[in-house]
Amino acid sequence: MSTINPQELLKSMRDSNPLVQCITNYVAMNIAANTMLAAGASPAMVHTPEESGEFAAIAGALTVNIGTLSPIWVDGMKNAINATKSAGKPWVLDPVAHFATPYRSSVAKELMSMNPTVLRGNASEIMALAGEQSSGQGVDTGDSVSSAENAATILSNRHDGVVVITGEVDFVTDGSRIARVSGGSAFMSQITAMGCSLTCLMGAFLATEDDAFAASIGALALFAEAGSLANETATGPGSFSWQFLDQLAAIQPKDIDISRVTIG
Amino acid sequence: MSTINPQELLKSMRDSNPLVQCITNYVAMNIAANTMLAAGASPAMVHTPEESGEFAAIAGALTVNIGTLSPIWVDGMKNAINATKSAGKPWVLDPVAHFATPYRSSVAKELMSMNPTVLRGNASEIMALAGEQSSGQGVDTGDSVSSAENAATILSNRHDGVVVITGEVDFVTDGSRIARVSGGSAFMSQITAMGCSLTCLMGAFLATEDDAFAASIGALALFAEAGSLANETATGPGSFSWQFLDQLAAIQPKDIDISRVTIG
Amino acid sequence: MSTINPQELLKSMRDSNPLVQCITNYVAMNIAANTMLAAGASPAMVHTPEESGEFAAIAGALTVNIGTLSPIWVDGMKNAINATKSAGKPWVLDPVAHFATPYRSSVAKELMSMNPTVLRGNASEIMALAGEQSSGQGVDTGDSVSSAENAATILSNRHDGVVVITGEVDFVTDGSRIARVSGGSAFMSQITAMGCSLTCLMGAFLATEDDAFAASIGALALFAEAGSLANETATGPGSFSWQFLDQLAAIQPKDIDISRVTIG
Repeated sequence: MSTINPQELLKSMRDSNPLVQCITNYVAMNIAANTMLAAGASPAMVHTPEESGEFAAIAGALTVNIGTLSPIWVDGMKNAINATKSAGKPWVLDPVAHFATPYRSSVAKELMSMNPTVLRGNASEIMALAGEQSSGQGVDTGDSVSSAENAATILSNRHDGVVVITGEVDFVTDGSRIARVSGGSAFMSQITAMGCSLTCLMGAFLATEDDAFAASIGALALFAEAGSLANETATGPGSFSWQFLDQLAAIQPKDIDISRVTIG
Repeated sequence: MSTINPQELLKSMRDSNPLVQCITNYVAMNIAANTMLAAGASPAMVHTPEESGEFAAIAGALTVNIGTLSPIWVDGMKNAINATKSAGKPWVLDPVAHFATPYRSSVAKELMSMNPTVLRGNASEIMALAGEQSSGQGVDTGDSVSSAENAATILSNRHDGVVVITGEVDFVTDGSRIARVSGGSAFMSQITAMGCSLTCLMGAFLATEDDAFAASIGALALFAEAGSLANETATGPGSFSWQFLDQLAAIQPKDIDISRVTIG
Repeated sequence: MSTINPQELLKSMRDSNPLVQCITNYVAMNIAANTMLAAGASPAMVHTPEESGEFAAIAGALTVNIGTLSPIWVDGMKNAINATKSAGKPWVLDPVAHFATPYRSSVAKELMSMNPTVLRGNASEIMALAGEQSSGQGVDTGDSVSSAENAATILSNRHDGVVVITGEVDFVTDGSRIARVSGGSAFMSQITAMGCSLTCLMGAFLATEDDAFAASIGALALFAEAGSLANETATGPGSFSWQFLDQLAAIQPKDIDISRVTIG
């Protein structure tokens, strides 16, 4: 466990400038792409079923987010996931507000059955996926991270993957190991698509680190560090947004405060 | 009339953190969501016909914007509008550049026939909807607010709803009452999707105030206040954009200058 | 050749505030629209086949970008291109990452056969279109501008249009004349959709200058100037992004450093 070093994980990711296919929602696309570029990855927003599978074969990892889903996009997601799995590559699922409508629930259920390498959601999303009662309203969580930890462990075992709950202190588990990552900023919940951007960033770390539990921690630590630094100077959500990107790009591996990560 | 207090309207909106379904265009989605979050509302961009109606049933209000329309999106809009109306909830229509093509005109006409609680447009859009000659070019207005006031009154009576013309000084009418709201910034016309974001914000106020005339004024006053404050420090449209979000989030009810609103 | 003056080209463009139809990708739409507004043009993102052709007839120019393409969007692109050509108006093609998948390649080939007035791409994209070996990864170039100059000349002659390769120093050719434009900022490759935004801006200059070679230079010079100015104060990609928009809006024709342009 002591071998998980977020500084080295950042260095590896930056050195390889991984190509990551991000199928995300319309709201998130721009900020997610900018987050990836600032962090040192190469994002590609390729979604249509006619090419999503073929593109997945050349990308280092895939991320799938159902924020503004529709049937044709779901077809594109499935083609990309199947191609990613066939190529033995990792993928991340972000089941945005999956509990809000029957359509969204059924899509999330179907994508979960494809066993994502990493599942990332807020507390309400994780609890609802495990069949627990949650208090989410639309895309926002109504539950605490700690109240969703049990659900995360259940899902991790059920789908043989890593589950990440993001919030004030993030929680990560692969069913046997657990970790917590602290940091970030309260402004993050006042800006849309920060979670979606983090999902894409997880793809970048997964593309360069075989241990999905470690890769998830690497992405969370970088995100938390940039958020904490931007929080010091931001005067509101608008200034936080661009200062976060500046910090993401400026952070060097040695700048990651490793005490943000608690393993076990 | 003296009971319309934009400070109290903001307080009510913030206190309830309303969930608003925003069906808006691809250009506006990110800035509209950020505007809503900064103001204190909870936006959800849910558009596909498979779920737009079911989501409308759980949201406090709906906003519909035809900026980048296509047939499948129009189906989603109609499902959401019907569900919103069935639930007795309010909705806002933003008929972006509806006069530009026959397809766009026919969609706008169809949505107008569903009688929006609030119609918001620029002067050219409002005049053209009332059958008057306008000078709009693409999405930009070519007419003054005052020249469209008569058209607004006609439309208000015809559709039994509130009509808002936004511009240098905004005009609001419910057919019997009228109001004007001043403030904002010239930078607002140099940034895309400010009007679209305001349309979403109107949904937030409508979700928490039954008088649609008052709710519209509440949204306009907040928008004008944040715009006026950001205008003082911005050095161009780029800096205005993030300073506007910072101001939206920082503004407290007592900061709204009530002299911006003239009723009657 | 001495008659190509980027200062006068900017003045003409600003004076006419051209309406430009931009069919671009989901990632780029917001920043591209803001780039156009800051520069002094009037963008309209109209894509659906039901109206894209009719809108093209009223716009001064059309730009087409295949970044997040899908079949229905390609139909909209073709309708718009055909209407633009019928009206004798110019159009620009941005063949984003066309070499990445067979579907994307076939769409790019089809659109190229419609002979764009201006083709703009990075070095890898231009080389691959000419049938040369390239080193592109996803949407990012892996080749230098100079290594793609021969490919640009071949394509210019083959399609009887202007070809622009953007990079550290941009290259422009119409098959007989060549020009280079220097300036900009290294931050430009750390922000998504800067190239896509430039493609839209080319449409603005094409709408007001009949010589497509000159118009391309006008757009490149403005973009390079704003980028160079923003580079002086930016502290990262986030701050560069908004400072670039501020500079675009503030630049007056006389501020364009004409020594950035080398013709012949």
